[in-house]
Amino acid sequence: MTSPQDPSSGATQLDERPWEEMLRLAQEGTHVQLEEYVSHLSSADQALALSRLDEDEETQVLEAMNAADAAELISHLPEIEAARMLALLDTSTAAAIVQELPSDEQADLLGDLSDEQAEAILEELPQEEAAAARELSSYEDDEAGGMMVREMLRFNDSMSVRDVIQDLSEHGEDYSDIDVRYAYVCDAQDRLVGVLPMQNLLFVKRAERLSDLMIRDPLSVQATASLDDLIELFDAHNYLAVPVVDEQGKLQGIVHREAVQYEETRAAESDYLKSQGIVGGEELRTMPLWLRARRRLSWLSINVFLNIGAAAVIAYFQDTLQAVIALAVFLPIISDMSGCSGNQAVAVSMRELSLGLVRPTEMLRVWWQEVSVGLINGSALGVLVAIVAVMFNGNPYLGIVVGIALFANTIVAVSIGGVVPLLLKRFGFDPAVASGPLLTTVTDMCGFFFVLGLATMMLSKLI
Amino acid sequence: MTSPQDPSSGATQLDERPWEEMLRLAQEGTHVQLEEYVSHLSSADQALALSRLDEDEETQVLEAMNAADAAELISHLPEIEAARMLALLDTSTAAAIVQELPSDEQADLLGDLSDEQAEAILEELPQEEAAAARELSSYEDDEAGGMMVREMLRFNDSMSVRDVIQDLSEHGEDYSDIDVRYAYVCDAQDRLVGVLPMQNLLFVKRAERLSDLMIRDPLSVQATASLDDLIELFDAHNYLAVPVVDEQGKLQGIVHREAVQYEETRAAESDYLKSQGIVGGEELRTMPLWLRARRRLSWLSINVFLNIGAAAVIAYFQDTLQAVIALAVFLPIISDMSGCSGNQAVAVSMRELSLGLVRPTEMLRVWWQEVSVGLINGSALGVLVAIVAVMFNGNPYLGIVVGIALFANTIVAVSIGGVVPLLLKRFGFDPAVASGPLLTTVTDMCGFFFVLGLATMMLSKLI
Repeated sequence: MTSPQDPSSGATQLDERPWEEMLRLAQEGTHVQLEEYVSHLSSADQALALSRLDEDEETQVLEAMNAADAAELISHLPEIEAARMLALLDTSTAAAIVQELPSDEQADLLGDLSDEQAEAILEELPQEEAAAARELSSYEDDEAGGMMVREMLRFNDSMSVRDVIQDLSEHGEDYSDIDVRYAYVCDAQDRLVGVLPMQNLLFVKRAERLSDLMIRDPLSVQATASLDDLIELFDAHNYLAVPVVDEQGKLQGIVHREAVQYEETRAAESDYLKSQGIVGGEELRTMPLWLRARRRLSWLSINVFLNIGAAAVIAYFQDTLQAVIALAVFLPIISDMSGCSGNQAVAVSMRELSLGLVRPTEMLRVWWQEVSVGLINGSALGVLVAIVAVMFNGNPYLGIVVGIALFANTIVAVSIGGVVPLLLKRFGFDPAVASGPLLTTVTDMCGFFFVLGLATMMLSKLI
Repeated sequence: MTSPQDPSSGATQLDERPWEEMLRLAQEGTHVQLEEYVSHLSSADQALALSRLDEDEETQVLEAMNAADAAELISHLPEIEAARMLALLDTSTAAAIVQELPSDEQADLLGDLSDEQAEAILEELPQEEAAAARELSSYEDDEAGGMMVREMLRFNDSMSVRDVIQDLSEHGEDYSDIDVRYAYVCDAQDRLVGVLPMQNLLFVKRAERLSDLMIRDPLSVQATASLDDLIELFDAHNYLAVPVVDEQGKLQGIVHREAVQYEETRAAESDYLKSQGIVGGEELRTMPLWLRARRRLSWLSINVFLNIGAAAVIAYFQDTLQAVIALAVFLPIISDMSGCSGNQAVAVSMRELSLGLVRPTEMLRVWWQEVSVGLINGSALGVLVAIVAVMFNGNPYLGIVVGIALFANTIVAVSIGGVVPLLLKRFGFDPAVASGPLLTTVTDMCGFFFVLGLATMMLSKLI
C-alpha cells in the first residue's frame, strides 16, 4: 500500500510484542510519545496490543492518552471488549472518552455496560449529549435508531445560501468529523422537509433560500426500521445516508450506509458463530473462562441429550448389533456422512434466504430441489460404502444394508437440511442456531434405524 | 419505512408470484409498463422474480426492457446468476446492458463468462470502454483493481476553480451517477498529485488553481492491494474512497468504501458456505443439478474416506465391542459431542483471526486457552454421560470408561479445533474449508480409540 503520508509505519509495524512498548510508554513516556506510537500501529495491532494487557495495564494505557486518542483506540476493539475496558476506568475518564465517540458508538457501548455504570458515565456528560445518548441506547444495535448518528449538517428551510456558507466557515472545526456531502433541511417545527446536496450550492446565487433548492419529500425511515429494511433501502438507492424521523416527522439523525454494512457483516459473522454452537454469537478468548465454558456448555448440554435420544435407537437394536458386530463399524460413517450432506443443504438454504431468492413458504420447491441432489449423491455414496462393506467382511448383504441405508438417509438429511431453515424462519426462530442440532439428531436416528432395521429384516443373510 | 416518493409500492409488493406479472408484461405490455412494474418491486423480489423464470422467459424480460433498467435489474442478482443470464442474451443486447453497469461490476461479470462470450461482448463496446473493462477484468474480484471504478471527478492541476465549475455545469448529466464529493487531481502526465474535497470550492475565489487548493500527497493504493489491505485502510481512515495508481503513480480509478464492504460481506458468507462443505463458496438452487451434485459430492467423497479411516479404529477393536455391545451405543455420542466441542473452538479461532486478536504463530497461547475450557466442559460432559451409561446397564465401569473417554476426547477436540485454523492460516491454506473434516476425522479416531482402548484394558470388569 502506498502511503506517502506515513513513511515510518513500515518500521514500527515490525514490533513482535507491541503491547510491551505501549505499556512502557504509558508508564515512562509522555502521552505524546504513546499516542504517536499507537497511531503508527495498524488498527488490528492496536486491538491486539490492548487486549494483551491485563486490566491494570489497560487502565494505565487508556488513562495516559488524551480522550480523543483513547476513543480512537478502543473503537478498533470488538464492542464487547471496548465496553469491558470502559468499565475499568474511573467514571470521569470513561465519560471523557465516550464524549469523543460518534453518537451511535456511544449508544452501543453504553448499552453493553451495566445500568449503574452507564448511568454514572451519562451523569458526567453535558446534559444535551447525555439525553441524546440515553435515547439512542434505548434502541437495539440493529435497528435504525441504534445505527443513527446525530452528527450531520442540519439547516432551517428559511436560510439562504449565504447563511449556510457563513455557518460552514464559522463552524468548520465542528464539522470536521461529519459527512458534509448532504445537508438536511427542517421547517420551524424541526420536521424534515428536504435534503440538499451540498455541491449544488456551487451553482446558485447566494441569496437563494434553501426551500427553493432542496430536494423535497426525501426518503426517510423511522427509528424502529429493521436492519433488513435498511439493507434493502441502501441496495435500491445509491445514497450515502438516510435520515431518521420520529412519528411526527421530526428529524432525529441519519444512518450512514457504512453503519448498515457494518451491522450486516457483524450479523453474518454472528450467524456463523451461532451455527457452530457459540451461544450469543460472540466469544473472544479474553472473556472470562467461566463465562466461555458456561456458554459453550449450554449448547453442548442440549446436544448431549439429543445424542442420547439417537443412541436409544442403537440400544433398541442391541441384539442385531450383537449378532452382526460389523454393523457397529458403519454406524458412525452413516451418521457423519448424513450430517455432512444435511449441512450442505442447510448452508444453501441460509444463503438463498439471505439473498431473498427463496421465500420461507416455498418448502415444497426446496424439498424437491434437494431430493434431486440427494438421489444422485445418495446413490454415489451408497455404492461407495457398500463396496467398502463387502471388502470388509466379504458378505454382499452387509453391503446392501449399509448402501441402502446411506442412500435413504442422504435423502432424509438433505430434505431436513433444506427445509428446516425455511420452517424455522417462517415461525420466527433463528435458522442459524437451531438447524444444526435438529438436523443431526433426526438424521442420526433415521440413519441408525435404517441400518439396524434393515439388518434385522435380513438377519439370516448377514450372520 | 416511510417512503413518500413511492406510495404504490405497498400494493404491488403483495404479488405472490411477481415473475408471472413480469413475464406477462414482457410478452404483452410496453417496455414502460414492464419497467414501471419492476421498479415497484423490492430488489429482493426483483432477484426472486427473475430467477424463477426459465431461460427463454428470462431472455424475453431482459430484451423487453431498456438497457439501463435491465442493468439495474441484473445488478440485484448474485454475480454468478447475473453472468449466466448475460450469457443467454444475444451479444448486442448483452453489450448494451454491460455498458450501463459501473466499471467494477462490468469487470466482475465479464470475468464470470467464458473467454469467448466475454470477448464477443467486449467487441461490441466502444473501444475505450472495452479496453478499460479488459484491464479491470484481469484483476481478481477481491483486489483493489477488481473493486475499483473509473467513474470519478478527475481534473488537471492547472485548472482553476472557474474551469471546474464550468465543467460541472456542462457535464452535470454525465456526473449524475458518480460520487462528486471528492475530485482527484492529476498532473500533465496523469500522475495523481492531489485530492480535492469539492465543498471546499464553496469558500474560495474562482480564479484559484486546483494545485493551490488540493490536499497534496494523498493516500493511494496499487491495483494489486488485497482486500485485507483495503479493509485495514478504510478502518483506519474515514474516507469514502481511495484512489488506485499504477507503478508510475498514474491514476487508474477509485475504490469506494462500499465496494470493500460488499466484498468483505461476500467473503464472510463464502467462508460460511465453504465451512459447511459447499465447494467454491457459492451454490444457488437455480444452478444446474449436475454441477450442484458434483460439487457437493467432491466434498462428501473426501469425508467418506476420512470416515472410513476412523471406522477402521472400531474394526480393530471388534472383539471388545462384541464382548460389551453396550459400548456401540456410546460411540456415536462420543464422536458427535467431540465434534460439537471442536467446532466451537474452530469458530472462536476463526473469529479471533478475522479480528486480528490472535496471530497465526500463537498456537501455544490458543491451545492453553482452549484446554482450560476443555477441562471444565469435558468434566461436565464426562460425568453426565457416565451417569447415563450406569443407568443404561447398571455397570459402574461402563460409566467410568465412557466418562473418561469423553473427558479426554473433549480436550483433544478443543485443542485441535483451536489450533488447526491457526496452523492452516500460517501455511497459506483456507482455514474455513479444511478445519472441519480434519477435526472430525482426528477426533473420531481418538474418541473411538479412548472408548475401545479403555474398555479393552478393563474388559474383565465390563463383562
